[in-house]
Amino acid sequence: MRLSKMHLKTLREVPNEAEIASHILLLRTGMIRKLVSGVYGFMPLGYRSIRKIEEIIRQEMDAKGAQEIHMSAVQPAELWMESGRWFKYGPELWRLKDRNGRDFCLGPTHEEIFTDIVRSEVNSYRQLPLNLYQIQTKYRDEARPRFGLMRSREFIMKDAYSFDKTFEELDKSYEDMYDAYERVFTRCGLTFRPVEADTGAIGGSNSHEFTALSEVGESEIAYCETCSMAATTEKALCIDAPASNEAELPLETVHTPGTKTIEDVANFLELDKTQTMKALLFVTYDDEQNENGYVAAFVRGDRELNMIKLVNALNIPEHAIAFADEAKMGAETGCVGGFTGPVGIHDCTIVVDSELPGLKNLCAGACKEDHHMLHVNYGRDYKADIIADLKLLKEGDPCPVCGAPVKHARGIEVGQVFKLGTKYSEAMGAYYKDENMEDQLVVMGCYGIGVTRTLAAVVEQHHDENGIIWPMSVAPYHAIVTIVNTGDEVQEKTAEEIYQRLLGAGVEVLLDDRKERPGVKFKDADLLGIPIRIIVGRGAADGIVEYKLRRDADKEERSMEDAINKTIQTVMQEK
Amino acid sequence: MRLSKMHLKTLREVPNEAEIASHILLLRTGMIRKLVSGVYGFMPLGYRSIRKIEEIIRQEMDAKGAQEIHMSAVQPAELWMESGRWFKYGPELWRLKDRNGRDFCLGPTHEEIFTDIVRSEVNSYRQLPLNLYQIQTKYRDEARPRFGLMRSREFIMKDAYSFDKTFEELDKSYEDMYDAYERVFTRCGLTFRPVEADTGAIGGSNSHEFTALSEVGESEIAYCETCSMAATTEKALCIDAPASNEAELPLETVHTPGTKTIEDVANFLELDKTQTMKALLFVTYDDEQNENGYVAAFVRGDRELNMIKLVNALNIPEHAIAFADEAKMGAETGCVGGFTGPVGIHDCTIVVDSELPGLKNLCAGACKEDHHMLHVNYGRDYKADIIADLKLLKEGDPCPVCGAPVKHARGIEVGQVFKLGTKYSEAMGAYYKDENMEDQLVVMGCYGIGVTRTLAAVVEQHHDENGIIWPMSVAPYHAIVTIVNTGDEVQEKTAEEIYQRLLGAGVEVLLDDRKERPGVKFKDADLLGIPIRIIVGRGAADGIVEYKLRRDADKEERSMEDAINKTIQTVMQEK
Repeated sequence: MRLSKMHLKTLREVPNEAEIASHILLLRTGMIRKLVSGVYGFMPLGYRSIRKIEEIIRQEMDAKGAQEIHMSAVQPAELWMESGRWFKYGPELWRLKDRNGRDFCLGPTHEEIFTDIVRSEVNSYRQLPLNLYQIQTKYRDEARPRFGLMRSREFIMKDAYSFDKTFEELDKSYEDMYDAYERVFTRCGLTFRPVEADTGAIGGSNSHEFTALSEVGESEIAYCETCSMAATTEKALCIDAPASNEAELPLETVHTPGTKTIEDVANFLELDKTQTMKALLFVTYDDEQNENGYVAAFVRGDRELNMIKLVNALNIPEHAIAFADEAKMGAETGCVGGFTGPVGIHDCTIVVDSELPGLKNLCAGACKEDHHMLHVNYGRDYKADIIADLKLLKEGDPCPVCGAPVKHARGIEVGQVFKLGTKYSEAMGAYYKDENMEDQLVVMGCYGIGVTRTLAAVVEQHHDENGIIWPMSVAPYHAIVTIVNTGDEVQEKTAEEIYQRLLGAGVEVLLDDRKERPGVKFKDADLLGIPIRIIVGRGAADGIVEYKLRRDADKEERSMEDAINKTIQTVMQEK
Repeated sequence: MRLSKMHLKTLREVPNEAEIASHILLLRTGMIRKLVSGVYGFMPLGYRSIRKIEEIIRQEMDAKGAQEIHMSAVQPAELWMESGRWFKYGPELWRLKDRNGRDFCLGPTHEEIFTDIVRSEVNSYRQLPLNLYQIQTKYRDEARPRFGLMRSREFIMKDAYSFDKTFEELDKSYEDMYDAYERVFTRCGLTFRPVEADTGAIGGSNSHEFTALSEVGESEIAYCETCSMAATTEKALCIDAPASNEAELPLETVHTPGTKTIEDVANFLELDKTQTMKALLFVTYDDEQNENGYVAAFVRGDRELNMIKLVNALNIPEHAIAFADEAKMGAETGCVGGFTGPVGIHDCTIVVDSELPGLKNLCAGACKEDHHMLHVNYGRDYKADIIADLKLLKEGDPCPVCGAPVKHARGIEVGQVFKLGTKYSEAMGAYYKDENMEDQLVVMGCYGIGVTRTLAAVVEQHHDENGIIWPMSVAPYHAIVTIVNTGDEVQEKTAEEIYQRLLGAGVEVLLDDRKERPGVKFKDADLLGIPIRIIVGRGAADGIVEYKLRRDADKEERSMEDAINKTIQTVMQEK
């Protein structure tokens, strides 16, 4: 493609709204274009890279025997009512009505649709296993769309669904997808880590997130360098402190004026924070967003509460809980802001972290302004409605597998694989007949890749201060031939010959034939990040051009022949 | 692909809801799957054919220098308000709100979005001409979705928009697209006709529809075999009857009891229908669907009213007009059901066909029960608010170009090209700076291809009583190798070798290795319509197989080598 003919609008300035490199660079290169908050379009270069990612995914999915289909984005509410998600899903589910007032949504995922296919088209065990996938536009009406393609409201996703006869066969399907995902992200040039993940709103028993490591990512992962443990911090297990053998001392109420934080009370009473416990107070909501109860959660004073573990323990969706208004909650439950403890609180669900019952003589709020209690003991002084691991695994905490101190890293969730089991087949009645002609539930898995988010992740990991540095596999073009001085006949002729010969060899090549100053062309080439650059300048008169890789600082002088051959060779190796 | 591994659910029965061949066969082959009325998904074979059509379109668009982009399906109302279409578009525009109550629609077309791109990214004449396109999911909330992919609510469309400096350059862009469209539909194997078309709701000055000829099509076209005239009947001009030189006779009211139709009154008064005129009565609506006026349209008694010509004459959208309640309208305007004429009617817009003023002494309703008037003459007895060609060009009417009798045919509109001119650039302020740094309006064209509808049109034109007969170019697979007796080692081995060698040669091939009776396999192969079939049966023991084209009745016995070579050769020629 000749740049003089291509629609290309690069920006010198950093767009105001953009904070992270991928958002800034995808806007500055004109590869994406914002329509409204969280809704982006792809311009010519951007869409080329999207299609390359799609093609890599397609190849790796097909290699595992998965079959591509294409379902509608619009989905009828009825199917979502069958699965129960119509009411459970929060306002991220973008709902609409048709002209007859019938309810629909714009699909954020397609479990219901694919389960519906299988329950009506699969009868026999002979038709299983089956893996169907699509690469398609998805919707999530985010409260705070942000970071460009990272969290947008309309996005492209590959979603696959596997259907097996047994859980053992699901394990195999899951492994196949896990393997395909490793290949996809490796081919896209990403540095990533598969980590154990929470199963969230989709449900099911087992899940891994594929996380592209990045400071700006929204996922926080905990990993161990000693063993292979890696999990989202939401999911990561935390080892309970060992149970104490101390004798239980008598409960005692002490005056602790103004000590509203654990820090304060520990200092005031000269206690270690591990000898205290803290309370977190919540209100919960029903499906119609009416308040339907209070929750008090307790963890050791030095711990942090993991909200995902809490909602899982309560078996409610994330959007059905919020911090309580302490005054209002106090009137009904006896809690007192900053001085709440498990003794004396009432009319709320008490959720206690799993290590607290084993610990003795802790200090806790007394449910009385400016007072705490000493020697609070589980069983004798308070009881839980639910006991569960509620702790966030912090950096330096012992690894739940081997005990070594864990590390934390941030990353971008580019893919996720789930074992759904029979959640959807049970809800929607997807059965197959086994060898004995008996009905059995189909066992499902689901597997997503954020195509547009993967593009952003690649840019996060591959850029410098001058622009993007595309890996060959997903670069919009492999090479760019820059005419330093448009108007110079020798340079133009040489560049044209290189351009034509590269095209002939199947290299995707841009010819920068614009009547612009060389500085502008070089800056644009850096910004766009095309992997190979051939610069045709004065040396062309002697048959010499410059060959440069975007990722390297150095340029090399080469003969035209040599530059062409080197380009073809590099493209073949890396694409 | 091995059929034993492919998800394939063919139906022996004709689905109840399906009336036309493409709908029946696409459902029976399991290529498409209905989700709800007007919403279909594509299963593995169906989506392969869709992607082939997309690829043909992409190649022909790229060959004309058009550049592919990908914009969102969700569009903010604000842009549609700028163009004025938010209120003009009827309930087919599928509207929705986001969680903040902001108005959006699911785009049926993208004029606003693409105009918005150009007004913000194109500044200079140097950036023009420009042609941007996308292949993308579109929405139209049809009142009566029908015929499967022919008229659905979610569908795939290629839409392109050209941007030029002048109307002359638009002519060139339009020709390029016209040419590309001829190539696309030819490559898809369609018999089609480009016909002059009405510009409808999109607006603009000049348009052609690409119509795949088919009895079941919803477009009616008029064409002339003597000259090259071809137009939709909606658009086709009608030649006025020559003006009469008769002297005007005195107006006379006559008693014509019970003669409510033209037929009746012509018989009763012994007149030719061409000596009468008929009235058609309508009510119109404003943007909020409130009634805002009445319309009486008059054409010669033997003519039919062309609704599109009427709404164009009134300059209102199609959905803003409906037949009037005659009793209600009579009270306000003096019309009388079955006896309405232009004399005496009041308080309504009178639209008169262009030939009526030239005709003398016509018979018309007297606006009085059981009475007509004789010798009604334009000017003397009645006047029009609007005079326009309102006539439908009927089969046998003289061709508006050469006068020979026109023919009618039905067809499926698979593509349309429009000259939009400056309609959108004016409404939305899309200017470029010309050589003198002066602002000029960008001149636009738009060009659509219904991708999913094209698939249906191909099936309408290529099928027999046993199933689909795919043209090679859009067939889901090129060839199918059928093992007559699965379990026979020689047959299996021979088939496997053919399969592997065809795969190696780049042929897209299915291997029917299912444990089914040969009859089932042959029936399925006919139904699926794969162009080339190689049947491996008893002859395999002697190295002989059968080679058959789906479109031919005959099979040929060939050596395995020969069948492989013939297959490769045929695929290369036809794909």
